[in-house]
Amino acid sequence: MGSNFASQTAGKPIRCKAAVCRKAGEPLIIEEIEVAPPSSWEVRIKILCTSLCQSDLSFWKLSTGPASAFPRILGHEAAGVVESVGENVEEVKTGDIVVPVFKRNCGECRDCKSQKGNGCSKFSVEYPCGMPRDGSSRFKDKNGENLHHTLRVSSFSEYTVVDVTHVVKMSPDLPIDKASLLSCGVSTGLGAAWKVAEVKEGSTVAIFGLGAVGLAVAEGARLRGASKIIGVDLNPEKFEIGKKFGVTDFINPTTCGEKSTSQVIKEMTDDGADYCFECIGLTSLMQDAFTSSRKDTGKTILLGIEMHGTPLSISPLELVAAGKTITGSMFGGVKAKVDIPIFANQYLNNELNLDGFITHEVSFEDINKAFDLLETRKSLRCIIWMDK
Amino acid sequence: MGSNFASQTAGKPIRCKAAVCRKAGEPLIIEEIEVAPPSSWEVRIKILCTSLCQSDLSFWKLSTGPASAFPRILGHEAAGVVESVGENVEEVKTGDIVVPVFKRNCGECRDCKSQKGNGCSKFSVEYPCGMPRDGSSRFKDKNGENLHHTLRVSSFSEYTVVDVTHVVKMSPDLPIDKASLLSCGVSTGLGAAWKVAEVKEGSTVAIFGLGAVGLAVAEGARLRGASKIIGVDLNPEKFEIGKKFGVTDFINPTTCGEKSTSQVIKEMTDDGADYCFECIGLTSLMQDAFTSSRKDTGKTILLGIEMHGTPLSISPLELVAAGKTITGSMFGGVKAKVDIPIFANQYLNNELNLDGFITHEVSFEDINKAFDLLETRKSLRCIIWMDK
Repeated sequence: MGSNFASQTAGKPIRCKAAVCRKAGEPLIIEEIEVAPPSSWEVRIKILCTSLCQSDLSFWKLSTGPASAFPRILGHEAAGVVESVGENVEEVKTGDIVVPVFKRNCGECRDCKSQKGNGCSKFSVEYPCGMPRDGSSRFKDKNGENLHHTLRVSSFSEYTVVDVTHVVKMSPDLPIDKASLLSCGVSTGLGAAWKVAEVKEGSTVAIFGLGAVGLAVAEGARLRGASKIIGVDLNPEKFEIGKKFGVTDFINPTTCGEKSTSQVIKEMTDDGADYCFECIGLTSLMQDAFTSSRKDTGKTILLGIEMHGTPLSISPLELVAAGKTITGSMFGGVKAKVDIPIFANQYLNNELNLDGFITHEVSFEDINKAFDLLETRKSLRCIIWMDK
Repeated sequence: MGSNFASQTAGKPIRCKAAVCRKAGEPLIIEEIEVAPPSSWEVRIKILCTSLCQSDLSFWKLSTGPASAFPRILGHEAAGVVESVGENVEEVKTGDIVVPVFKRNCGECRDCKSQKGNGCSKFSVEYPCGMPRDGSSRFKDKNGENLHHTLRVSSFSEYTVVDVTHVVKMSPDLPIDKASLLSCGVSTGLGAAWKVAEVKEGSTVAIFGLGAVGLAVAEGARLRGASKIIGVDLNPEKFEIGKKFGVTDFINPTTCGEKSTSQVIKEMTDDGADYCFECIGLTSLMQDAFTSSRKDTGKTILLGIEMHGTPLSISPLELVAAGKTITGSMFGGVKAKVDIPIFANQYLNNELNLDGFITHEVSFEDINKAFDLLETRKSLRCIIWMDK
């Protein structure tokens, strides 16, 4: 699809629409912006659809610190087609279907080559609001003012520029909205169950928070043969939703009476779940997850982003005596270029449920509706179509 | 050696010498005591030698809580010969060389059969000061008063009674003092490097505290091919000692100038050690170890017993963003009956350095000297010979 189109725009700036965030927490404004051509090692992507992840809400509201900069273009879960590439880019070409990812995967450094983890040590300095090699911007508004990037992706724009280390080539067989899901939240949950926890067949799992990430953990645990998958959520409707992703048991903490969630989990399992996942970002739930994990082998996996600066306080004696493990994980231990195509194949082989995550769809003009739906917890994932 | 002897004493109480602790922190008193014959599932052991572990000092000083009970018989690192066995004991017989272990390994429960961890869920109630099945005592003093047990072993006695789930049969080829080392501290360190951290070839290791456990971690890391093993200790003499166990680099935190230990470790490694071990039991060192561990793959393994109740406070955002892991471990993940014989073979094959841990030897009458030597950090391990 892209080659003719690219011949007209490659090497030139593109004027297009973007949803600009001018102030923390205020509705995004659809504006005409200018997107620079990709520099060396960069890829310009025509975004086909984008979806909204909880972290977008966090960055939208963030008004202090080095990751806060306005005006900015948010969005980091998306899929699109390569419009053009800069010098030295051989991995993808015009017309390729790709997903941008916030977590780098150069494929060459010690960490990318390691079997473990999903770090990438290619660049030593991190620029939270610009391109990863020098912190500069590829976006200008109609007054010529630079617009800041978000999470190296900035997908709330018809076109964006992403470093090649943040681009994953996808099979064109995968529906584009399903590809978008795999670029962040769903892969995080699937990866956490598979690569971080390494959930074993017949094991027990407890998941604190059944948003898209928590449900993806359930789906990942189901695929790995967990015998019991306990969902913990304040919303009772989440049990029916969760069943589609393998949740076998449900706890609503407000209806446990005098018992704590941990007590109930211990009674439901052999004195504690083998794997406990925290998918919200609340320190109190992290403590509950730790307490609910089984003595001697229990793993607690933290996925939620704690934004309040509340420390996690653990008794070292309990940690040692119980032989428990706590692991933090960003992006579920997923090495983007290696693992996302594996998830795509699992979907194409009818093993993986991705359809169930898409609860809403809106046009780009209605992007603020997607924010409302996620903030009021009505949506799991709302697909935002750029051309509809 | 045992059979004639056993025929005279089996089934009867034995009068022998024990070092009794009558009050927290006071010198032990060598007294004549009576040791009951082993009940069903129990083994009476003639202790040949015992050695002093840091935990003995902790229990010696412990004056409150359910694990504090006086008068008691301390000691849990030892080796001996089976004098007689109770009903249902088929695993060992009179004359077998054995080590008692504080950590149970029934071999039959779900946890013992699992590949992971070293828990044992055979008994649901724990009795900290008595026999594991019912909390009763097998020791009486000359006035007929019961003496409390310690850690299911109580090896500071010429004879002790231990549940069969706490007994490991050893090769008679192994010198008896080396067998004693393997019954607690050295196995803890070796196991932590092997089974908990799973140290990889070519990796970097930092060890906080070069006592016997820390040095055993170094020895375990050396055996697994770590390329750099950094020892951290306030005692500069520990570098020379550590070299015998594979320590390649040394940090004395008091001579780092304005740099923190973590900074120095990050400079010595590729921005953090792959594995950091805390072997003292100080929360501040646990924090240092966590900070010194490498982003994205770093594991912090806590082995030290924190006795002050100071919580470990960790930033959950740092844990998640850094993708780090913290694991607590008791007895280094060692499944006693499976793994201790493996260590014994490594020694007999000249792969494992055990000799270097033995810095002092005393007779049973001089047991309080062993306490002095360990408390003043003059000894790594002091062997206490029962018959010398």
